[in-house]
Amino acid sequence: MRDHFEIRDHDAAGRIGRLEVPRADVTVETPALLPVVNPNVLTVEPERLRTEFGAEMLITNSYIIRSTDRIRDRVLSEGLHDFLDFDGAIMTDSGSFQLAEYGDIDVTTAEILEFQRRIGSDVATPVDVPTPPDVDRDRAERELETTERALADAEAAETGEMLVNAPVQGSKYPDLREAAGRHAAGTDLDVFPVGAMVPLMNAYRYADVVEAVMAAKRGLDPDCPVHLFGAGHPMMLALAVAMGCDLFDSAAYALMARDGRYLTVSGTEHLEEMSYFPCSCPVCADHTPADLREGDDDRAERLLAEHNLHVTFEEIRRIKAAIRDGTLLELVDRRARGHPAMLDGYRALLDHADQLEATDPVSKDAFFYTSHEAARRPEVGRHHDRLAWLETPDDLLLTESKPPSSHDHDAVWRVKPPFGPFPRALSETYPLTAEVPERVDAAAQTAAAEGVRRLVEANPETAITLGHDGWAETALDRVPDRVAVDDLRDLGR
Amino acid sequence: MRDHFEIRDHDAAGRIGRLEVPRADVTVETPALLPVVNPNVLTVEPERLRTEFGAEMLITNSYIIRSTDRIRDRVLSEGLHDFLDFDGAIMTDSGSFQLAEYGDIDVTTAEILEFQRRIGSDVATPVDVPTPPDVDRDRAERELETTERALADAEAAETGEMLVNAPVQGSKYPDLREAAGRHAAGTDLDVFPVGAMVPLMNAYRYADVVEAVMAAKRGLDPDCPVHLFGAGHPMMLALAVAMGCDLFDSAAYALMARDGRYLTVSGTEHLEEMSYFPCSCPVCADHTPADLREGDDDRAERLLAEHNLHVTFEEIRRIKAAIRDGTLLELVDRRARGHPAMLDGYRALLDHADQLEATDPVSKDAFFYTSHEAARRPEVGRHHDRLAWLETPDDLLLTESKPPSSHDHDAVWRVKPPFGPFPRALSETYPLTAEVPERVDAAAQTAAAEGVRRLVEANPETAITLGHDGWAETALDRVPDRVAVDDLRDLGR
Repeated sequence: MRDHFEIRDHDAAGRIGRLEVPRADVTVETPALLPVVNPNVLTVEPERLRTEFGAEMLITNSYIIRSTDRIRDRVLSEGLHDFLDFDGAIMTDSGSFQLAEYGDIDVTTAEILEFQRRIGSDVATPVDVPTPPDVDRDRAERELETTERALADAEAAETGEMLVNAPVQGSKYPDLREAAGRHAAGTDLDVFPVGAMVPLMNAYRYADVVEAVMAAKRGLDPDCPVHLFGAGHPMMLALAVAMGCDLFDSAAYALMARDGRYLTVSGTEHLEEMSYFPCSCPVCADHTPADLREGDDDRAERLLAEHNLHVTFEEIRRIKAAIRDGTLLELVDRRARGHPAMLDGYRALLDHADQLEATDPVSKDAFFYTSHEAARRPEVGRHHDRLAWLETPDDLLLTESKPPSSHDHDAVWRVKPPFGPFPRALSETYPLTAEVPERVDAAAQTAAAEGVRRLVEANPETAITLGHDGWAETALDRVPDRVAVDDLRDLGR
Repeated sequence: MRDHFEIRDHDAAGRIGRLEVPRADVTVETPALLPVVNPNVLTVEPERLRTEFGAEMLITNSYIIRSTDRIRDRVLSEGLHDFLDFDGAIMTDSGSFQLAEYGDIDVTTAEILEFQRRIGSDVATPVDVPTPPDVDRDRAERELETTERALADAEAAETGEMLVNAPVQGSKYPDLREAAGRHAAGTDLDVFPVGAMVPLMNAYRYADVVEAVMAAKRGLDPDCPVHLFGAGHPMMLALAVAMGCDLFDSAAYALMARDGRYLTVSGTEHLEEMSYFPCSCPVCADHTPADLREGDDDRAERLLAEHNLHVTFEEIRRIKAAIRDGTLLELVDRRARGHPAMLDGYRALLDHADQLEATDPVSKDAFFYTSHEAARRPEVGRHHDRLAWLETPDDLLLTESKPPSSHDHDAVWRVKPPFGPFPRALSETYPLTAEVPERVDAAAQTAAAEGVRRLVEANPETAITLGHDGWAETALDRVPDRVAVDDLRDLGR
C-alpha cells in the first residue's frame, strides 16, 4: 500500500478510501470533494464548508497568495489554517493553472513548494505543465519532460510532513498518459492529479476524458490516490469515480453561482429560466426561483453557491453509498442519461470493461440490467471468461426457458441474457441472480450468444443445443454453426 | 374544457394543469402529490405538509372516519378542515380500498357521498370495485358494471360544490379499461382515478401499469384530470406523468417510514443498511443514517417520513420543471434506469409513442438522445411521418457526412440518426437540432434507416443515394433495395 492511502471498498474501478494527511492530522474519506476557496473572495466561509456541507478538505491557490501583497504576509504569519479558519486538510495549487492560462509564471517548483510549506499547506503541488488536449505530439512529449523534471525537483525538496502532488500529464496521447502515470507512481510523491482535463470537460468531451484517465490509471499503481483536477460538476462524478478517481475539486459551485447557474446531477440550469427547484436542499426547500431572482444579486449568488455545494456533496454521498452497495455502475448508467456526451463517456468507459473488471467485486447484492449498455459491463465479460473453465457433459441443452419435462440430453443449463449459459449450481450466485427486464433487447441477447460461443469454443467435443426466446438475428449470427438452434416461440413453449 | 381543470403546458402526454376545487376555494397545480393522512395517526401534521412541503391537497379516508366512533362525531361537528387543521383541498376516499382488502363494507355510494359532503370533503369518492389485475374477464366485466352503477348513483346524489371522483376500473383488460374511461368521461363527474393499480405497483409490474393506464387514457377525454390511485413512489412519478396522470397520493411516505424504509428516485433503501444519505433535504443534511438508528424509533420514523415527503415533492417539482422545459421524456429515460422493471415500463410506454405524440409539443429546446430507447420517442416517429410530405428533386443524395464538394445530384440532404434524412431548410428546427452521442448505436441507425425507407416509399420517382457512416446490418436491412448505398468509411470521407 502507498503510505498515506488505504482502500476500504471497491466497485468497478471505484473505491472508498482513506487518505491520511499527517500535517493536518486528519484522515479524509474518499471519494472526496475539495471546494476551491479563492483566498480573495470567500463565497462560503470555509468553516461552514466543513460543518454544514461536510468538506473534510479544501483547495486554495498558493500562487495567488504569493502574488497578492495584501494577503501574502498575513498568511505567512498566521498560517493558512488560521487565515481561512479551517481545521480540515488544505491542499494548495502551485500556479500551474495560471501557467496554462497566461503562458508564464515567475516561480519554480523549489520556490513554490517552499512557500507552500511555509504557509502551512497540507498537500502541495509542484509547477507542472498542463498540456492542453489537442496539441501535437512533440509539444506533449516536450512538456511532459518538463513536468517530470518538476516531479524530480519536488522529490528533492524539503517538504517534511507535507504531502506532495505528482501531476500526470500527456495531453490526449494515451501512451504518454500511461507512461506519465507510471513515472509518477515511481516517485515517492503522494497524490496523483490527472491534469489538464478542464478543456475537455468544458467542451463536454467526456469520452476523451475517459480515454485519458483510463490511460493514466493503467500507468499508476492501483493504490495511488488519484485526483481528477478541475472536475467538480456533479453530473460526471460517478463516471469519474468508476474510473478510479478519488479526489475532486469544485470551483464550479462558486463560479457557476456568479453567473446565475444552478447545478444538478444531469446538467446545469439558469436561474433566470427556472420555474421550480428540482431539489430539496435547505436552500431549495425554503425558496423558489422567483424568490432568488427578486432578492439582491449577492444573496442570490450566495444561495446558489450553497445549493451547488449541497447537490455536489449529496452526489458524493450517493456515490459512496453505491460503492458500498455494489451499485456504482447502475449509478453511472443513470448519470449517462443526463446528456448525450455523458452517454459517450459511459460507452467509452465500457470499452475498458477489462480494466474495470480487475477490481470489481466477484459478488454483490444484485446486478440490475438497466440499459443496452449494461450488456457490456465487466460482470458479463467475467462470466464469459468463466464459461471456458466449466465442465460440460457430452450432450448439453442450453435453454432460455424452463427445462423440458423429458429430453435426451445429459444436462440442461439455463441461458439468461446478457450472461449466456450457466449450470444450475451457479444460478444463485452473482451476477446470475440479475434482475432483467421482461422486454429483452438485442444487446442482451447478443451478449448471451457470445456466452454460448465461448462455451462452444471451449468444449469442441460437446454436442450443444440452444433453445432461445425469439432472439434477434444479430444475436443468432454469433452462435456457432454447429449448435442446434430452436426458437422456443416456434415450439410453443 | 372540463369545468374544473385547465391544462397549461404539455410534454409527451404529461401536462401542468390547474384543478379548481370550489368547495375549498383553492386551485391546485398539477401534477400534484396528495399525502395520505390517516385520521387516527398524524405522522406529519397536515399544516406542516402545506407549509414545509408544499402540499396543496391531501387525501384521507371517509370510511375510516365514519367507522371510528372516537372521531366521527368530532369530524361531523368541527368539519374535516378544522379537524385536520388544513386549509388546502381535501379529497376523501370511500372505503373501496377496504372493500378490496376485506371483501365487504357496510355503506352504499349514496350514503358515503352524503357523509363526505357532511364532513366537508372537497373531492368525494363513490364506492367503486377495485378489481385486481389477474382475475378472469367475467369477473372484471361484472365488477365494472357495479362500478358504473356507483358512478350513476354519484351523478344522482346531491353533492353541491363538492367535486366527485369517477374511478376507472377494468382489471388488466385494455379494452375494458378504455371502455371504462369512456364511460367515466361521459358522466358529469369531475376527477378520474385509475384504480386497482396497487397490486401491479407493489409487484413492480410497471409495464402492466403502463398498458392499463394508457388504455384508460384512450377512453378518457384529454381534458379529464386523472388520478393514479395509490401511486406515490418517487421512482415512478415521471413515468406516470408522461402517460398523462395528474394527481398522485402517497401513503408510502408514512408506511415505508414505519418499516425503516427510505425512498429515493431510483428505489427504496433500508435505514438499517445505509451508510450515507444520498440526499440533501433538511433531514439528510442534518443527520447521518447512524444518527437516526441511534435515536428512538418514533424520532427515526418521523424523520424518515419527512425525508420521504421531501424526496417525493422534490420529484414533483423536477417533473414540472421538465414539462416546462420540454425534457420530460429525458427524465423518464433517466428514471427507467432505477430498476429493470422501470425499464420495462418505459419500453411499454414507447409502444404507445403515437398516443404520446398527440399532445407532444412540435417544438422544444433540444432533443437529447440518451439511450437506445430514445430512438422510439414520439419525435422520431413524427419526423418519419413528415418525410412523406416533403418535396424531393429527381436525384437526391442523403448523407450522414458533409456534402461532397462536387457531385451530380440535384440536392443533398443530411441524414442524422435517429431521425433520418431532412432538407437543409429544416436543419435548425426541432427535433433535428438534437444532441446525439458521437458513438452512434444500432437503434439510432435503424430508426434513421426507417426514415430513409419512408422517404423512398413516398417518392417512387426519385433516385436516391445514401452515404452512411458504417451503419449496422440491421439498419441497412431496412433501406429499400433501390437505394444506392455507400459506406462513407470505405470512401475515406
